[in-house]
Amino acid sequence: MPGEFDLIGRVRARAGTRPDVLLGIGDDAALLRVPRGFELAVSTDTLIAGVHFPDDTTAADIGWKALAVNLSDLAAMAATPAWAVLALTLPSDDGDWLDGFLDGFEELARRHDVALVGGDTTRGPLSITITAHGFVPAGAALRRSGARVGDDIWVTGTLGDAAGALAQWRRGGPRSAKLRYRLDRPTPRLAEALALRGLATAAIDVSDGLAADLGHLTDASGIGAQIDLGRLPTSRILADHFADEHERWRLQLSGGDDYELCFTAPAANALAIEQALAACAASATVIGAVIAGRGLAFTTPDGEAFELNASGYDHFTGGHV
Amino acid sequence: MPGEFDLIGRVRARAGTRPDVLLGIGDDAALLRVPRGFELAVSTDTLIAGVHFPDDTTAADIGWKALAVNLSDLAAMAATPAWAVLALTLPSDDGDWLDGFLDGFEELARRHDVALVGGDTTRGPLSITITAHGFVPAGAALRRSGARVGDDIWVTGTLGDAAGALAQWRRGGPRSAKLRYRLDRPTPRLAEALALRGLATAAIDVSDGLAADLGHLTDASGIGAQIDLGRLPTSRILADHFADEHERWRLQLSGGDDYELCFTAPAANALAIEQALAACAASATVIGAVIAGRGLAFTTPDGEAFELNASGYDHFTGGHV
Repeated sequence: MPGEFDLIGRVRARAGTRPDVLLGIGDDAALLRVPRGFELAVSTDTLIAGVHFPDDTTAADIGWKALAVNLSDLAAMAATPAWAVLALTLPSDDGDWLDGFLDGFEELARRHDVALVGGDTTRGPLSITITAHGFVPAGAALRRSGARVGDDIWVTGTLGDAAGALAQWRRGGPRSAKLRYRLDRPTPRLAEALALRGLATAAIDVSDGLAADLGHLTDASGIGAQIDLGRLPTSRILADHFADEHERWRLQLSGGDDYELCFTAPAANALAIEQALAACAASATVIGAVIAGRGLAFTTPDGEAFELNASGYDHFTGGHV
Repeated sequence: MPGEFDLIGRVRARAGTRPDVLLGIGDDAALLRVPRGFELAVSTDTLIAGVHFPDDTTAADIGWKALAVNLSDLAAMAATPAWAVLALTLPSDDGDWLDGFLDGFEELARRHDVALVGGDTTRGPLSITITAHGFVPAGAALRRSGARVGDDIWVTGTLGDAAGALAQWRRGGPRSAKLRYRLDRPTPRLAEALALRGLATAAIDVSDGLAADLGHLTDASGIGAQIDLGRLPTSRILADHFADEHERWRLQLSGGDDYELCFTAPAANALAIEQALAACAASATVIGAVIAGRGLAFTTPDGEAFELNASGYDHFTGGHV
């Protein structure tokens, strides 16, 4: 059969497997085994060309990113990824594009032992929906709602690189390949997430910008947050390309696509957190504190209040590309 | 927040719940519990306007159908549905359309105790991807690969009604509302599927037409099939609107969207199958037999071979609307 079945065949050949996959792609449903004592974590995200990635993004980068944003959601729950299902809508029967997409997808999937257990292909404007499945020991998941007044607020890695790449892409002119790599190949913080089990009180991944995502966490926890802008972790390359600190803060607070983890933890856990992250060659930075009340307060190194006039971007109403 | 978050809020309010949903929509991932001794069945399907349903389909019918086609996949595995995640791409921020969609979705979800545990909304051409999750006792799933030479071939309900509706819609002129209802509101054969556990040897749902789907089953089982066209279960309404039996056979063999179950079983199980189905007010018909070799042979009531020049439709390459 032409068309759908050929494409599914290509996907199937690259699906990978795991012992807990009893039946993968090729029947009406996959059959899977969840280990005893674990909860199943499930997350879904759609990526659309021109909304979630620039139109010039390569197929391999799209494949990587589509899986990465879903694994990032599992990381934010402190879940270990296991399986993914892929619904792919393609404008044409383009086997080369699909192979490139699967190259990027597979590269990340192998790194985290993710098996592709289901797929559907349809014709239409390019759109990728992945549903990712992972495990977390019963009761050990990091929810958005666990932050308590007095907790430190942490963020992994650095913020704003992807937003910097997008700003450069939009305005034309000189662009940094390193920043662009951070936009195209986000790293789901899975090792960090496992290290934080039992130490952090709440977590979220930074997909829509720190302000928006931390806002979801504080709303879910019924608390407020105070953030010291001088402590926002900043890559050397971002500082080189965006020398103005106000512009940089806006990128770091409002830009999306960082896929770092923002989490909260009692101050008494700080040393244990640093040690646990160091053990997996990772790092995180305290950027502020959980406070009573509601909402986010940003403070400059001079002790002044900083007003963020744009909240995190909204894929749906605006799109950011 | 406007846009995505409002839409997600509407979805969340209609999500339903179950005791095995530890955490539903609203965090980075859902947290779910699979009962001990059961395997997890997972299936995903995308519906695109103009490919998987006519453009004049109501929002409520689309909501019903998007879930129904996924539950039909679980039925084909003899799995009991539990959870769904919904990725919805909408051309505009149309709350009325979404409410209508959720009306249809919820009507079917409640009927089968399905909780909506995750969602993502994006802007773009109308597209719906649902990933459905269900349970099946370890080892009890009906796979496509279990058919054995000598087994009877059965199909539930009647075939061809949805294809008849589509044929009428395409050609203009008189249309049957009853046929159209079968196109817009397919019934996932879940009760039938559970009744068949332990009795059937293989199963598939008829989504792309009997010839295509039975072909997948026979290929997976490494056998052939002989089908008596005179035994194809036919609704009165289809026979009234399509008097020519050759045209009707083509609709029944090549038309899609029936969402009946096609299954195989040893002849010795026939009485038990009829009794089990009668107990859930359902029925199925023996339409042929599993034979050695490969491929499908269709025989008319006169004992002549019937050539089907079009195989089951292919959503990807052609679309059928």
